[in-house]
Amino acid sequence: MADRRRRDPARTEARRHQILDAAAACFRLRGFRGASMSEISKAAAMSTGHIYHYFASKEAIVEAIVERDQIHGLAIIEQLKSSADVRAIIIEGGVEAMVERPGKTDAALMMEIYAEAARNPLVASIVRNSCDKVRASLLEALRKCQDQGTIDPEADAEDLRRILFIAYDGLTANLALYSDTDKADAKRVVRLMLERVLRPKP
Amino acid sequence: MADRRRRDPARTEARRHQILDAAAACFRLRGFRGASMSEISKAAAMSTGHIYHYFASKEAIVEAIVERDQIHGLAIIEQLKSSADVRAIIIEGGVEAMVERPGKTDAALMMEIYAEAARNPLVASIVRNSCDKVRASLLEALRKCQDQGTIDPEADAEDLRRILFIAYDGLTANLALYSDTDKADAKRVVRLMLERVLRPKP
Repeated sequence: MADRRRRDPARTEARRHQILDAAAACFRLRGFRGASMSEISKAAAMSTGHIYHYFASKEAIVEAIVERDQIHGLAIIEQLKSSADVRAIIIEGGVEAMVERPGKTDAALMMEIYAEAARNPLVASIVRNSCDKVRASLLEALRKCQDQGTIDPEADAEDLRRILFIAYDGLTANLALYSDTDKADAKRVVRLMLERVLRPKP
Repeated sequence: MADRRRRDPARTEARRHQILDAAAACFRLRGFRGASMSEISKAAAMSTGHIYHYFASKEAIVEAIVERDQIHGLAIIEQLKSSADVRAIIIEGGVEAMVERPGKTDAALMMEIYAEAARNPLVASIVRNSCDKVRASLLEALRKCQDQGTIDPEADAEDLRRILFIAYDGLTANLALYSDTDKADAKRVVRLMLERVLRPKP
């Protein structure tokens, strides 16, 4: 078994996603503390031992969930490097990431992870590290906009970066509370918010 | 006992707060699902039966926590009615409410309540009802600003109201994740955010 897994990375990857999806569903339903490894293994239709082969703890599962969620954000960051209109990508990429949440970590699960982060230093550092990966690239992109004259050059780029993070988290909380939100309308409001924050002139 | 409680509303009120503080601490530490009524009663140094005399369920406790949190927000709303500079009160009151959280419901607890709201329709409706109490007054205040020419008259006031709610929730999530945030600096960034969103000119 172990040999076959080593020889088949696609299968390993599929198994990992199977566990992450099951764990995400359990965390959403019963909370990080309420969901046990045995419940997660039942939801994933695997033995608990098998799950421990992939993840040493619930915290390790959260780390993988947060990393998976970030792939899309990092793809937007990649686009920023080669784009002529950096500001448009920040706004449109931000709107898409905030409302569609293509990273699969939905708003409800993110609230659970934040609540756990507030009482669990290990989870807090996992989420903070994840934010740190986006932080520098976003800051660089904002400075590029200022050079291009598409964002108020007098604003402090780091302040704007913080505001964008606040906007992202705020929409997450909002979607967790209003799961019936109309996505097109939410995108319109978020776009307006980002445009007003990132206005070209002081 | 029951008669004496009825005759002494201050004592009843003190008992209620004692329970709410204990429950808030338990929810923060073990989550809404993880914290049992018996743990809450232990933390409040009261019998479980005594707690049920005040609150029928954990949801009823959350409702009272959310209501208590709102008293400060409603006080700001009251100021808005008689103020000459409504925009300044929205911004300064917002900064204060977001960062200082004088309603006693700290950011970590609020994340726990949002996570629970996403899986518990009763808690969701409690939080939504609480938001509804502020919604109309804030909208009215924003329209007053537009009349006074202190906020872009071309913006849709309801869109701005939604953006302010997103900003509020975003800062809450941010403070839950970065509990070591410097408050003075957070206020400066939130003020900048609100000023940019509520700029006078289009």
